[in-house]
Amino acid sequence: MKKHIVLLPGDGIGPEVTKAAKQVLEAIAGRYQHTFTFESHEIGGAAIDQQGTPLPEDTIEACKKADAIFLGAVGGPKWDQLPGHMRPEKGLLGIRKQLGLFANLRPVQAFQQLLHASPLKPEVVAGSDLLIVRELTGGLYFGEPRERRDNGQSVVDTLAYQRMEIERIVEKAFESARVRRKHLTSVDKANVLESSRMWREIVEEKKVDYPDVEVEHMLVDAAAMKLVTNPSSFDVLVTENMFGDILSDEASVLTGSLGMLPSASVREDGVGLYEPVHGSAPDIAGENKANPLASILSVAMMLKHSFGMHEEAETVEAAVQQVLQSRYHTQDLKISNGVLVSGSVLASKVVDQISANDTT
Amino acid sequence: MKKHIVLLPGDGIGPEVTKAAKQVLEAIAGRYQHTFTFESHEIGGAAIDQQGTPLPEDTIEACKKADAIFLGAVGGPKWDQLPGHMRPEKGLLGIRKQLGLFANLRPVQAFQQLLHASPLKPEVVAGSDLLIVRELTGGLYFGEPRERRDNGQSVVDTLAYQRMEIERIVEKAFESARVRRKHLTSVDKANVLESSRMWREIVEEKKVDYPDVEVEHMLVDAAAMKLVTNPSSFDVLVTENMFGDILSDEASVLTGSLGMLPSASVREDGVGLYEPVHGSAPDIAGENKANPLASILSVAMMLKHSFGMHEEAETVEAAVQQVLQSRYHTQDLKISNGVLVSGSVLASKVVDQISANDTT
Ligand SMILES: CC(C)[C@H](C(=O)O)[C@@H](O)C(=O)O
Ligand SMILES: CC(C)[C@H](C(=O)O)[C@@H](O)C(=O)O
Repeated sequence: MKKHIVLLPGDGIGPEVTKAAKQVLEAIAGRYQHTFTFESHEIGGAAIDQQGTPLPEDTIEACKKADAIFLGAVGGPKWDQLPGHMRPEKGLLGIRKQLGLFANLRPVQAFQQLLHASPLKPEVVAGSDLLIVRELTGGLYFGEPRERRDNGQSVVDTLAYQRMEIERIVEKAFESARVRRKHLTSVDKANVLESSRMWREIVEEKKVDYPDVEVEHMLVDAAAMKLVTNPSSFDVLVTENMFGDILSDEASVLTGSLGMLPSASVREDGVGLYEPVHGSAPDIAGENKANPLASILSVAMMLKHSFGMHEEAETVEAAVQQVLQSRYHTQDLKISNGVLVSGSVLASKVVDQISANDTT
Repeated sequence: MKKHIVLLPGDGIGPEVTKAAKQVLEAIAGRYQHTFTFESHEIGGAAIDQQGTPLPEDTIEACKKADAIFLGAVGGPKWDQLPGHMRPEKGLLGIRKQLGLFANLRPVQAFQQLLHASPLKPEVVAGSDLLIVRELTGGLYFGEPRERRDNGQSVVDTLAYQRMEIERIVEKAFESARVRRKHLTSVDKANVLESSRMWREIVEEKKVDYPDVEVEHMLVDAAAMKLVTNPSSFDVLVTENMFGDILSDEASVLTGSLGMLPSASVREDGVGLYEPVHGSAPDIAGENKANPLASILSVAMMLKHSFGMHEEAETVEAAVQQVLQSRYHTQDLKISNGVLVSGSVLASKVVDQISANDTT
């Protein structure tokens, strides 16, 4: 297969981990005889510095033509004092909205080798394997009006949803649950919000189409508690944009594997943007210390969700598992009796694994 | 001093724990020669059953005349299928709004004797002692419009704040930080919400009046992570209504002492509503198993915040500590080598402690 991938290295450790992602894609192309072509564009702080805007036109145009996009990370203290419309995050929000990437998929998995790094007791977190499906292009993030009023004496933001926007994310979540453990938790605040009551109704409507999936409704405050007390009780969670932002970040620290977590932001036709959850980590940027595994696992998500390459995705995931079992790790992981290596060496170990069984 | 207290026992275990709260107030009155008068009113499911509405007029009228209000708990499966305006929670939201109880104070403390019940590793949670100051009468909870549109094809809720509403809660938080460890974390989503940008500006304006308090701003997603990874790094957190709902419930499960956590909802003149965090626990209602300590600690908050009785409040808190040290506990606490007792016996142990040093 031929696929065209846009790389958006971005800021901080973004360029380092993007390099690792590209190497893994090339290794997969080699092993499975695919043709992956690449082009790089600027976003975030890097784009502000070079072109005076966090989301340049040529970046958007390139992304619109891509089969998939890989994003390293955006943001950093250097750009923190800029006014709202000129901040690196605007690049990220802009690309999500302009490409219609409405479904954010955030898997969280407890890696046995990393449980010691979890803030939770091992017996609480062991076996956790959940997926948060977050609506990404609606709600409080984009609703209008959002403005000061009465001469600055008051302010409003708007939580707005189209029925269609809720339907498609709920469907996506049911589809995801169907190929996992068939349990869906829909998270809302139906005792307070009208939008949540509509959300709950739509989940009830859709569930007749997925009789194999068990559904429960949970209030967002209860979900925030249960993620900590019993994370392994969840399979798939689906929720609106702002709740999803909070819960997916809360969930990301439960297993001690933040440096390992991938994410995908996709739309119906499979086009998606893939990025590690960890962010730009300006404190270690340029030092070849950044853990590339979250980016590499994001590549696995790209192969699966955008390209339908399931075997290839499993090859990448298996390679990561093998490298972890060999106890190679970057400084963030602190595997006992492990072999501490740089980010680029860790990436090359994964690449070697992928190519090792290459029989071509 | 003379004080008039309205009791709202409510649903589930509400009546049991309200009884304990009243006994403790009477013990304090006896020991310190105060006169506390009481009247009881209905709220929530109990009010729906008796009077067809979750917040009867006579309840509101009585609360408006009270010096302080104690609420047991509202809600339960029995009323879960009722339409929105007829649900028990409406009683709670109504009373907060009608009495202008804008500041919700949610302390979370790690009790050494209960750390074993925490989902977090002891070294992560030990020493945690934080206070969440949640804005309680604005934001998404009450903003208008909140409605279906386009023939049910879309929906909006509104996050609205008056400048004055943000100012007063921020001041309350600074005042709270000043009498604690002098550190304030203001939580917002300023990279997305206009209301959060205004919130952040107001915190910056107010901080010049509190030069002794150190302030930091934190995004809500980052705060949701840090509460789990490093709860002891927080002193006072202040945030808007919905973020506060989520974060305060998340925080409530960190220390393993959910059954111990009190809350206060107060306004400028000191009038306040006090309630245990744990809710109505319908599964154990009427069995005399409910832990009364959260209610008793809520009484301590009432003595301090509404009546300015600091010594009395400390007497209650010390009595709870002594009872815990004697290893008396209800079934939720599971203290090793402890003495399992009923809720009413545990309450009487606290009452005995309070009266023990009574030299009158
Ligand atoms: C940078 C920020 C605007 C963004 C969001 O809130 O969506 C981030 O937190 C995320 O979750 O990807
Ligand atoms: C019952 C519900 C409306 C309420 C809220 O969201 O404020 C509760 O969760 C709370 O925190 O007191």
